[in-house]
Order: sequence, then structure tokens, then C-alpha cells
Amino acid sequence: MIDLKKIEDARNIVSKIAVKTPFAYAPQLSVKSGYEIFLKKENLQVTGAFKIRGAFYKISRLSDEAKERGVVAASAGNHAQGVALSAKYFNIPATIVMPENTPLTKVNGVKSYGAEVILSGANYDEAYLFARKYAEEKNLAFIHPFADEDVMAGQGTIVLEIFEDIESLDAIVVPVGGGGLIAGIGSAIKQMNPKTKVIGVTAAGAPAMKNSFYAGKPIDSIDVRTIADGIAVRDTSSVTLDILLECVDEIVEVDDEEIADAILFLLETRKLVVEGAGAAGVAAVLYQKLNLPPESRVAVILSGGNIDVTMLSVIIEKGLIKSYRKMKLIVTLVDKPGSLMKLTEILASVSANIVQIGYDRTSASLAYGDANVSIALETKGKEHQEEIRELLTKQGYRFYEEK
Amino acid sequence: MIDLKKIEDARNIVSKIAVKTPFAYAPQLSVKSGYEIFLKKENLQVTGAFKIRGAFYKISRLSDEAKERGVVAASAGNHAQGVALSAKYFNIPATIVMPENTPLTKVNGVKSYGAEVILSGANYDEAYLFARKYAEEKNLAFIHPFADEDVMAGQGTIVLEIFEDIESLDAIVVPVGGGGLIAGIGSAIKQMNPKTKVIGVTAAGAPAMKNSFYAGKPIDSIDVRTIADGIAVRDTSSVTLDILLECVDEIVEVDDEEIADAILFLLETRKLVVEGAGAAGVAAVLYQKLNLPPESRVAVILSGGNIDVTMLSVIIEKGLIKSYRKMKLIVTLVDKPGSLMKLTEILASVSANIVQIGYDRTSASLAYGDANVSIALETKGKEHQEEIRELLTKQGYRFYEEK
Repeated sequence: MIDLKKIEDARNIVSKIAVKTPFAYAPQLSVKSGYEIFLKKENLQVTGAFKIRGAFYKISRLSDEAKERGVVAASAGNHAQGVALSAKYFNIPATIVMPENTPLTKVNGVKSYGAEVILSGANYDEAYLFARKYAEEKNLAFIHPFADEDVMAGQGTIVLEIFEDIESLDAIVVPVGGGGLIAGIGSAIKQMNPKTKVIGVTAAGAPAMKNSFYAGKPIDSIDVRTIADGIAVRDTSSVTLDILLECVDEIVEVDDEEIADAILFLLETRKLVVEGAGAAGVAAVLYQKLNLPPESRVAVILSGGNIDVTMLSVIIEKGLIKSYRKMKLIVTLVDKPGSLMKLTEILASVSANIVQIGYDRTSASLAYGDANVSIALETKGKEHQEEIRELLTKQGYRFYEEK
Repeated sequence: MIDLKKIEDARNIVSKIAVKTPFAYAPQLSVKSGYEIFLKKENLQVTGAFKIRGAFYKISRLSDEAKERGVVAASAGNHAQGVALSAKYFNIPATIVMPENTPLTKVNGVKSYGAEVILSGANYDEAYLFARKYAEEKNLAFIHPFADEDVMAGQGTIVLEIFEDIESLDAIVVPVGGGGLIAGIGSAIKQMNPKTKVIGVTAAGAPAMKNSFYAGKPIDSIDVRTIADGIAVRDTSSVTLDILLECVDEIVEVDDEEIADAILFLLETRKLVVEGAGAAGVAAVLYQKLNLPPESRVAVILSGGNIDVTMLSVIIEKGLIKSYRKMKLIVTLVDKPGSLMKLTEILASVSANIVQIGYDRTSASLAYGDANVSIALETKGKEHQEEIRELLTKQGYRFYEEK
């Protein structure tokens, strides 16, 4: 484990740049789960994620010579921003290697902190290899995103903040990718409040650390695929794994559907934008993956909020359909004047608001004289949708639903 | 003005139910504006808005007999939730009158606190009149959303929290609808820190209070229309206006486009979901409506976060187009095999990701043998869109853009 003294030292250093993020009771989530749930809102952290903590502490501990030469990291996400902003604070050069397909907004975000960006490799692993080689050739300090004691100690500072706000916890729920966050958090917890259960959450599409944890040895994934890009880690490191084996009680798994639901839940009820990795813990609560006694007092780490708004928009759209607030119908009409008007009248009579409409009369599957109207409707819930279906059936319409 | 002692008393009462919301420095907003901007995050308040403060204090001060008989309010929004939750706390009956077209989710939200809901009237004003009559007939206490000293004192408690977190302010920026929030805030500020400028922000589509303030007498609007439904107030009250004339320095105005941009800005950079009214202050900062000296220290009240996710999704979509991250093209092709493939190849060559596509060859405006392809593209910024336009032109395509 990481020594608590080191984590306390990190807290003093890290507080120069990171804010103490809000830690707040979550009423709806508590009622739904039967636990007493508190959220640690690292999505409201500087750079929008906890990663600044570890990166800043690591860089602070480099020798003056090493600092002056500069630092290198590989990341297209939160670690990149953490390293870039930390380097800016110390006024030292930073080079961030990002995969070639990194969105321009992320590249510009890092550049805005004054870091140099090298685009290299088709994916993270290739960018990582390039960055390591680059750091070695140029004799620059490589800032690993998780397999580093200083980085892990920095992440552990979250626990010191939590115990300023609450006296004790029965469990803490932490998203797990490479394991740096949970290694720091678990180390701090087990030294401060050893009875607290430390529960990790991996994405079903990136189970490397879960598999490694239960096998007791590093097992890399062949391929990773999840909307939780912050924990989409393929290769595990024995440096973090060894610490997890000491201080983590359990690792559970959530899939992309569950994560998306958690993102929408946090958006609607907590007014918070949380990225996929950041919502993994809440997904585990919502989908009852935690095996804890009722009324357990549980802290859930919202690790970050850097989600692409396009993705957010897709999650909202899908979520509206899943929660019966939107339905898509394909209705077959007789292709003559007035048909569409009659249909829209019927829909208006049950207060179904049309938000999108399309008209097709040339599909090969249509009988001559028929036309298909595709309609997206805003609806008020399951019963309302049932009412609409019954009414259309009663009026003799042929229709099917698009999911 | 509302006496500071009363506001201090309200603070003691209100803290039984309302949380002390985070007050945090906003770096990007500060850099953009040249001020030092701090955000008071009432969107993270219980019920997602500040309204619980005033409603709770008002109800707490009713006599035991009045409490037992119960309370009535008219609102489809944040005030409804504030009154319902407060009544639940005191374990007394609450009746909320909502306009007939109120979305089911809002009705259910209020019902979930145990309040009775009466749907009456085609709009807020009709619901309000019904509620007043209902309260009088049944001898129940009517909880006005703003024109009430206790309600205003409750809203003023925000200032006491702010001055626990910061020593002084040059200005405070507050969204204004009926004026209850700014009356409470202005009263507290002018007694605690009189040099602080109090600046109100109204929506351009609901200028009643701005017009009244500058005329020095109540001027109602004939019609209101804004995405900031929380401040879409048609009729002003002389009770609040008189206080505003004493403690408000200036009222500025923002339009719906500016509000939508502010919502997207807070979503992307601050990871916060804020409703239209809640974002009005940030819109005023972003669009330079504040006449303050550079480096002024400014608190902006994010008054609430209860925005419909469908609206949020529309704001994201429009925002992506305005910020050059999405473009919609209608390209005219020769309607033969391979045409579309060639076009998609060209777009792929400049990394323009196609997110939506439609094909039409029957428009009357098309020459025989031509087809229109409508394409939505994810793009990386203004220069990228320019590159796409030039490439298509060079390759001989006829196209136009859909805004």
C-alpha cells in the first residue's frame, strides 16, 4: 500500500492547484438503493477530473533538473490535461503524445495550457510506446497515468478530503481502469478507517483489472470497447495490481447501457455532467451490483466530467426512448390528401407532441397507393404510449415501432 | 429593504433543509471576461433550485393552526417543488395548482413529495388566479413565489453563505423574473457590503421587471416568451419592485440565443446542468452586458438546474452547429451507382465524420437524373469546414448549407 504519510504530504502539495470538491448526500439515489449514498464530485475538479491530483504531486517531486528538462505523457484524456496544467504551474515544458485520431477540441484543450502536442499512433497503446521512447531518447521524465507511487498517492488525497466532511463510511465505490485511483483511495482508507469496504467498478468492455484482481496476476485484455473511455485500459500493471490485492475488497462490473443510464440519472436528478468512467460507480448503485447491508453509508466517486457533448446528446436521445418519454412510429397511410392531417389530429387529441416527421412512398415494401410516415413523438410515460398504440389500432392504422 | 436580522433568522431556519451550495471560482469565464468570476451553484441545491429557501422560511413562520390547515401555491416549476418539499418537512398538507399542459414528469415530481396537484388553467396566470381563489375559499395559506417578505428573506440567505466563502465582492449578478431572489439578495448585500453593485438580468422575452425598474412603477408585459421559464414572469408586483428600487443598481437583458450559449458553456466547461433562468447571469458575462471595471470580483448566481433534457439536447445540437463542430450540407449528385460512394470517400479523406444522411431524388426542384443528398457532418472547427467546402467545390459538387 501507499503510506498514509505520503498521501498526507501529497494533500499539502496538491491543494496548491486542486480544489476540495463538494461531497454531498444524494437523496434519490439513497431512496432507490436503500443505502445512504454520498457523491464525491471530482467532475467539478480543476480540469474536470481527479487526474490533476496525481500528475501534480508526481511532477512536484521531480528534481529541479528533471523539472527544467520537462515532462512527457501519453493520453488523449484527463491525464493529458492534468500533466499539462501541472507543467504550466511549475512553468516547465510538457509534451503530450496523443493518438492521431484525437478530436481537435482535446488537442486544443491541452495546447491551451501551453503543452506541446505530438500526434502519433493509431490508438492509445501506440501513442504510449512512442511517448516512452521519446522520453528516454530526450532524457525527459515520463509521467505514467497510474503505475507510479507518487501518482497513486496524489489520487489518494480524495480520501483525506472525504473524512473532513464525514466521520465514517461503510464502503467506498471507485471506478477502475488502470487502477491508480483505487490504489490511492484504498491505501488511504485501509489505514484511516480499515473497516470501510473498498469496491472497484470496471466497465464490462474493459475488464482487464477485474480479471487480473481475481486471478491474482496481470491479465491484459485483447481489445477494449466501452463508452467509459477514462477506464478503457487494455494492459494492467503489476505495480498497481499488487496494491489492489492488498486494499480492495471486491471489483464489480457495469455495462455501457447501465453507464449511460447513470449518466442520464446524474444529469437529470443531480444536475451534473459526468463522463462514462465517472458514472460507473452510480451505475453499480442503480443496478444493485453492491452486496452491502441495507442503510450502509456509501461514498461514490464521480471521477470526472469530460464527456463529449455529442455523446451526451446521443445518451439523452436513447434515454428518452428507454424511459418512455419518446417513441418512434412508422405508420402506413393511404397516400392521398388529408391522410396525414387525420393522423396528426388523432395524435394531437392525446397530447402526443410530434418532434420529427418523415414521409416515404417509394419503399419497395409498400403497396402502390400506400405511404409510410415515420414519426417521433414526445410522450408522458409508459401508459401514455399504451394509450397512443390503442387509439391508432382502434382507428385502423397499421404501424410498427422503431426502437 | 428586508431587514438583515430577518435574513439572518431565515438562515438559521432554512439550513434545516437547504444545503450550503458550492461557491467556486470559474477560470475560463474569468479569462474570457477579464473579471474574477465566482459561481454560486444553486442548481446543486435540494430540489435543484434556490426556491426551497424562501418557501421553507415562509411556511416555517405560519402559525401552528395555519400550518395544520395546509398551504397552496401556483407553479409548474421550482417554486412548486420548494413548497411541496417544505410542506413534507412540516408534515402538513400542500396543494399545488399547475397549468393543465404541465409535463407529467413535473406533476409526478411534486406528487412524489406528497403534495396534492390540481391541474387548472391554460397558463400560469390562470393557474395563479385559481390557486388564490382556492386558498381563500378553503382558508389556506397561499405561498406567493416572490411578493412576500418572508419568501424574499429566505432567498437572501444565499448572501450570508457567500460571505462565509469570500470576504468582499465588487458585484453580484442575479437572474430576475418576479424579483424575489434579487430583492432578498440585494437587501442582504446592501446591508453587509454596501459598495457591492447588485445587477439584475432579465430575459429579453420577459422584460416586465426591467421595464418596471426603469419606469419606477409596475409595468406588466402583454406576453412572455423565453427559454428561461423560471424568469418568464408577465406581471410585476409593487411589493418586490419597491425593494428593487432601493437595492438594485442596474438591470440588463439577455436573449434566448445568449442564454442557450451560456447553458452549453456551463455544461461543457463547468460540468453543470443549469436551466435557462439559471444561466442568464453567465450569459450576461459572456456577452459583455456588465459595465464593470476590469478585474472586478463578481459573483454570479446559478439559480437552478431544472431544465428538460429534451431542451438540453436541442441546445447541444444547435450549439454544435454554431460552434462549427457540426455542419449540414445538401449536395446535388448525379443519380447513378457510385455517386454517393465517391462523395463519402471525399469526405472521409478530410476526416469529416458523417452522422446522418438522407437521399432524395423526387424533389420538384431537381433536374431529372439528379439527386439531393443531405448530410450532417461532425467537424473540427471553422477551418475544417472551410477545407470541406473548398474540396467539394474543387471536385465540382453543387451544394448548399442548411443552418
